Amino acid sequence: MALIVQKFGGTSVADIARIKHVATRVKHEVEAGNQVIVVVSAMSGVTNQLVDYCNEVSNLMTDAARANADHVIAAGEQVTSGLLALELQSLGLPARAWSGWQLPLSTDTRYGKARIVHIDTKSILDSLAEGTVAVIAGFQGVSPEGRVTTLGRGGSDTSAVAIAAAFNAERCDIYTDVDGVYTCDPRIVKKAKKLDKVSYEEMLEMASLGSKVLQTRSVELAMNYRVKVQVLSTFDERPADQLPGTLLVDEEDLVEQQRVTGLAYSRDEARITLVNVENCPGVSAGIFGPLADHGINVDMIVQNVTEDGKQTDITFTVGKADLARGLEVLKTAPGIPHYETVHTDAGVAKISVIGVGMKSHAGVASEMFRTLAEKSINIIVISTSEIKISVLIDESYIELALRALHTVYGLDAVEEQSC
Amino acid sequence: MALIVQKFGGTSVADIARIKHVATRVKHEVEAGNQVIVVVSAMSGVTNQLVDYCNEVSNLMTDAARANADHVIAAGEQVTSGLLALELQSLGLPARAWSGWQLPLSTDTRYGKARIVHIDTKSILDSLAEGTVAVIAGFQGVSPEGRVTTLGRGGSDTSAVAIAAAFNAERCDIYTDVDGVYTCDPRIVKKAKKLDKVSYEEMLEMASLGSKVLQTRSVELAMNYRVKVQVLSTFDERPADQLPGTLLVDEEDLVEQQRVTGLAYSRDEARITLVNVENCPGVSAGIFGPLADHGINVDMIVQNVTEDGKQTDITFTVGKADLARGLEVLKTAPGIPHYETVHTDAGVAKISVIGVGMKSHAGVASEMFRTLAEKSINIIVISTSEIKISVLIDESYIELALRALHTVYGLDAVEEQSC
Repeated sequence: MALIVQKFGGTSVADIARIKHVATRVKHEVEAGNQVIVVVSAMSGVTNQLVDYCNEVSNLMTDAARANADHVIAAGEQVTSGLLALELQSLGLPARAWSGWQLPLSTDTRYGKARIVHIDTKSILDSLAEGTVAVIAGFQGVSPEGRVTTLGRGGSDTSAVAIAAAFNAERCDIYTDVDGVYTCDPRIVKKAKKLDKVSYEEMLEMASLGSKVLQTRSVELAMNYRVKVQVLSTFDERPADQLPGTLLVDEEDLVEQQRVTGLAYSRDEARITLVNVENCPGVSAGIFGPLADHGINVDMIVQNVTEDGKQTDITFTVGKADLARGLEVLKTAPGIPHYETVHTDAGVAKISVIGVGMKSHAGVASEMFRTLAEKSINIIVISTSEIKISVLIDESYIELALRALHTVYGLDAVEEQSC
Repeated sequence: MALIVQKFGGTSVADIARIKHVATRVKHEVEAGNQVIVVVSAMSGVTNQLVDYCNEVSNLMTDAARANADHVIAAGEQVTSGLLALELQSLGLPARAWSGWQLPLSTDTRYGKARIVHIDTKSILDSLAEGTVAVIAGFQGVSPEGRVTTLGRGGSDTSAVAIAAAFNAERCDIYTDVDGVYTCDPRIVKKAKKLDKVSYEEMLEMASLGSKVLQTRSVELAMNYRVKVQVLSTFDERPADQLPGTLLVDEEDLVEQQRVTGLAYSRDEARITLVNVENCPGVSAGIFGPLADHGINVDMIVQNVTEDGKQTDITFTVGKADLARGLEVLKTAPGIPHYETVHTDAGVAKISVIGVGMKSHAGVASEMFRTLAEKSINIIVISTSEIKISVLIDESYIELALRALHTVYGLDAVEEQSC
């Protein structure tokens, strides 16, 4: 008997009708002879509503305030888990709802973005052994202080994958409102293709580069524990074993490694350039240390030294929402190195080419640069990893760049022939 | 330093503006030098919404289903407790939200209408000692199985009084949408007066006879543990010590015992008369046993024996909603004694005269019967206790009867003179 974890996101449990549909999906797995653990998000819109309530009463950023906010926000998933368990019972399946603290699913005390520390499997294994479906509220756990924690946005994916790892599940099926992972965002590139398989490493890059299908931390977890994750459409009426979907696999399991697997992009970028910074040891630490201390994530960084080596220009990117605060830190934080002036640009975007095949296929980068040059698109910053090349460009060229690169790397879908 | 319990019902925390108002009430008590435990209901409408959701997915009445429903329904109070704690922090008061399981507030396993078994005070006492206000989600606890339970409708009153008893609180202030307990429902009797004090026993009769101000079980608890309960208006802007309200007291603390303290009524009555039941030992048990087994509460009972003693008519009342099911039980349950025919009437109501002074003042009952007779109101059934006389009458006479009795017993408010 196999143990399957099924995760349903907010749009999958948006209302009572959708919850009833989800129950039939669960029933199908049970009738196929599996033990089933279901992980659910809050009904779509509920978490936002609860967060709005919290913001209306408090703008405090203390741990004590975040703990009270988590107490509020975790209620959304609690409701969905109870409702789905009730519906499963109505279909004749024994089912029990679980909150994070009831397993317990133990986390650290970083309220609002807690990390999972340990998942106690005993109670649920006992319950599964009795033939009961376990419906677990995602996105939440309990801290060593006995308080409810939440795992941060998209945390239900993380719950599901961590639970699949802890229970050594055969599969972790993530049901969402798209039918899989695509070579590029189909809203921008019409010819984008669904990928049948994608490696953990590629998915990790795509998730962190703006593809919203899976949360980055859940992919990291899946990779570390080799959890067999499938992304499936909740709106497709076919049974799970007939759904196309996308399977996360080990790199070695990709039979034919494409040079490029997919393209990702992010509009949430702002550029900051410090001009004529005095060049001395520790200058980078002097700039990026204070920014990190203020919780500002810096992504791409380039540095050019003047000919005499005495001065340097430093360009880097931050999230658009952090731009004003970042400039404030650069102006006021103690220890920031002297610089002549600062330029900023919030009208930039990052596009990325991703593929494990890059390691063995040369020329992917040069092909990218040539393609963008042909379209007269200026590259502002370049950053690379083993399986990814990212460039910062003017935001207005984003669609043009993605479509051109999609064609150049041979990713365009072939029109299906109708017979 | 005194410990005060404040309880705020659904209309008191109906929206964010009301929650902010509640926070100022809490702050006032803290600034007066008190330790404060707050017990909150769900925002008004939320519990109904959650119950509706549950009913949409399930009509199962099993314990397993009720447990999943409690998992859903308890979320409402959880949200309010977190929001109020956040708002208190915004006002500069250390505050922490607590769910029932976090104390723990232990109950039995009667999901949906659980009874409180034990309240662990240690964690909250530690927190109070640090100067932190405790905001507890009312209406909920945790069963020995580690599952969330709810205490039944109005259960937040019960939570508050039980917590006040467990912590040996100096006062338990119940904030509600009326400014106290009245001699009669002011919507029916315009001259109804607010009572400054009412004895536990009287309040218990009034609560169980339809006055919605306090839940019956909370009054029982207050009486058993001699908790000093005050009913206060949440909408009156004056500080708590200047609010008029109604105080629950021991009978001995009522300086002058009125013959009659108040009138209560209930429209939720239906009469069943079994005609010519064979009269033999065990006939009552044969009728009321099966009804109780089916969860049907019987209230008033009268029995008349025929002259020859061989047959008897039995009349009793049940809730209107139980009438059809009650008849079904009388028709089909095994062991029901033989009867000739059955009459029913759903158009009846019960009115009650309540007062501890009745014990020492004779003639309260005869005055009631005379007054009703003068208004040509027929009495169908009479039932009495030491401090209460209830009669069943035709529902259409309810207002007339209440107003006449209110005047006869000298309860009418005297018009205040303006100078």
